[in-house]
Amino acid sequence: MATNPKRRVAFQGEFGAFSHSAALKLSGARTPLLPCESFKAVFDALQEGKAARAVIPIENTLHGSVHENYDYLLACDIPIAGETTLRISHNLIALPEVKFSQVRLAFSHPVALNQCRRFFAQNPQIKPISFYDTAGSVKMLKEEHPAGAAAIASDMAAELYGAKIIKRNIEDNSRNFTRFFLLTKQTPRAKPNSVWKTSIVFSTENIPGALFRVMACFALRDLNLTKIESRPMVERPWEYLFYVDFAGAQTDEKVRRALDHLREITTFFKLLGSYQPTP
Amino acid sequence: MATNPKRRVAFQGEFGAFSHSAALKLSGARTPLLPCESFKAVFDALQEGKAARAVIPIENTLHGSVHENYDYLLACDIPIAGETTLRISHNLIALPEVKFSQVRLAFSHPVALNQCRRFFAQNPQIKPISFYDTAGSVKMLKEEHPAGAAAIASDMAAELYGAKIIKRNIEDNSRNFTRFFLLTKQTPRAKPNSVWKTSIVFSTENIPGALFRVMACFALRDLNLTKIESRPMVERPWEYLFYVDFAGAQTDEKVRRALDHLREITTFFKLLGSYQPTP
Repeated sequence: MATNPKRRVAFQGEFGAFSHSAALKLSGARTPLLPCESFKAVFDALQEGKAARAVIPIENTLHGSVHENYDYLLACDIPIAGETTLRISHNLIALPEVKFSQVRLAFSHPVALNQCRRFFAQNPQIKPISFYDTAGSVKMLKEEHPAGAAAIASDMAAELYGAKIIKRNIEDNSRNFTRFFLLTKQTPRAKPNSVWKTSIVFSTENIPGALFRVMACFALRDLNLTKIESRPMVERPWEYLFYVDFAGAQTDEKVRRALDHLREITTFFKLLGSYQPTP
Repeated sequence: MATNPKRRVAFQGEFGAFSHSAALKLSGARTPLLPCESFKAVFDALQEGKAARAVIPIENTLHGSVHENYDYLLACDIPIAGETTLRISHNLIALPEVKFSQVRLAFSHPVALNQCRRFFAQNPQIKPISFYDTAGSVKMLKEEHPAGAAAIASDMAAELYGAKIIKRNIEDNSRNFTRFFLLTKQTPRAKPNSVWKTSIVFSTENIPGALFRVMACFALRDLNLTKIESRPMVERPWEYLFYVDFAGAQTDEKVRRALDHLREITTFFKLLGSYQPTP
């Protein structure tokens, strides 16, 4: 089926990566996809019009915020228009003819391998082998048929490459979630019964009480913060960027007034977008 | 030289890892070391008395806070007693007899490989190969002498394993810094002309203005925040932990009063420690 490349949604990683799942959730199962090598390539594709939408991970419950993507958001003029959260779970995946008792090697990205330490301690006959990507390791099984080999990746990767899950959810910590943003200039359809959130970035003068005054902009209008994070600016020690998310849409009267108040008291201010989370 | 194992400083990774450099900076060049497989193993060694000190990464300018280590800090009764920041730079390292023109493979952790994309784009004859560890890839060169192979790791790793740096600072982004904490019950020697910082973790009621009241505890006493970060609590959606660092020592009168005030208005509060940064 021929598709207009400009309808594509860009994401980082191989087909079957967690960003691919997030892209389907945020953009619909029939959206044409543009897998990219790096986060920078995702933003380039979006800015150059090679994709109309992009899906990027922004924070993980174990590994924190993806500051690299915040950096690109700061330089990008395309707003955040959607948000979703995925549970990150890892599965031992092999080709259909391979039995668990035959597995001697498990290929995956070292971060995923490291999140399955208990599994490897309980199964010392299986050796973890570093690979550049989780879904890419399933693709490799399919292409190269290495003997006694399995991969660790998402269910989607197993399905996509026609492999099977031989042990499900082998991760040590089940509290592993990643939050993703959808970026697009297209206005997403409003969901009538859903909350709104707004994301902003700003910096303040480096004086005691500066952040207290910022918090007043929200507290005086009963606006509830859902995230606040300071980030030191490397070139300017003792100066900080702040990432703030709060409940409300930029079109609400009290949000509009809070944003005006913030512009008045900050030294730098950028509105990243308002969006309705997809459960 | 026989050393008392209880004097050891635990860190995660192989000898030559960035945590090893941070351990030397924070604990002195003659400190006996205990390399550990995982962050959990570092905290276990500390809690079980197998090491008197531990050095852990807590945040990186590109990758954000290491939430996993904040989790262990919350469960740990050993205070933060020191802090330092390291510039993360990557070098192409080979055995002494290998010339740059002979290199065809570069082994390293995928996160490091991914931070050297420009180098690989400019040198397409060199193929990146994922390995479980940066310093471990230099160790492997030494042990296995693979043909045409190099590794990407720190200068320290090159020195330790008797390899040489053939291209220095090949990372794309020079603004890559990691902040480390030293944990110990031993009181470090006070540095007379150095500032103090204090780190705390707390949670508040989930009501608008809760964080505004928290900021008041600092602003009313002219205490300057150097970090604030909210972290959603996975089991309790819409509840948050806050990580805050501020200038001052827990023994200062106004800090003591601010901490008392915070205990009064938070639903959970933990003092992680006061420390003097090591430049």
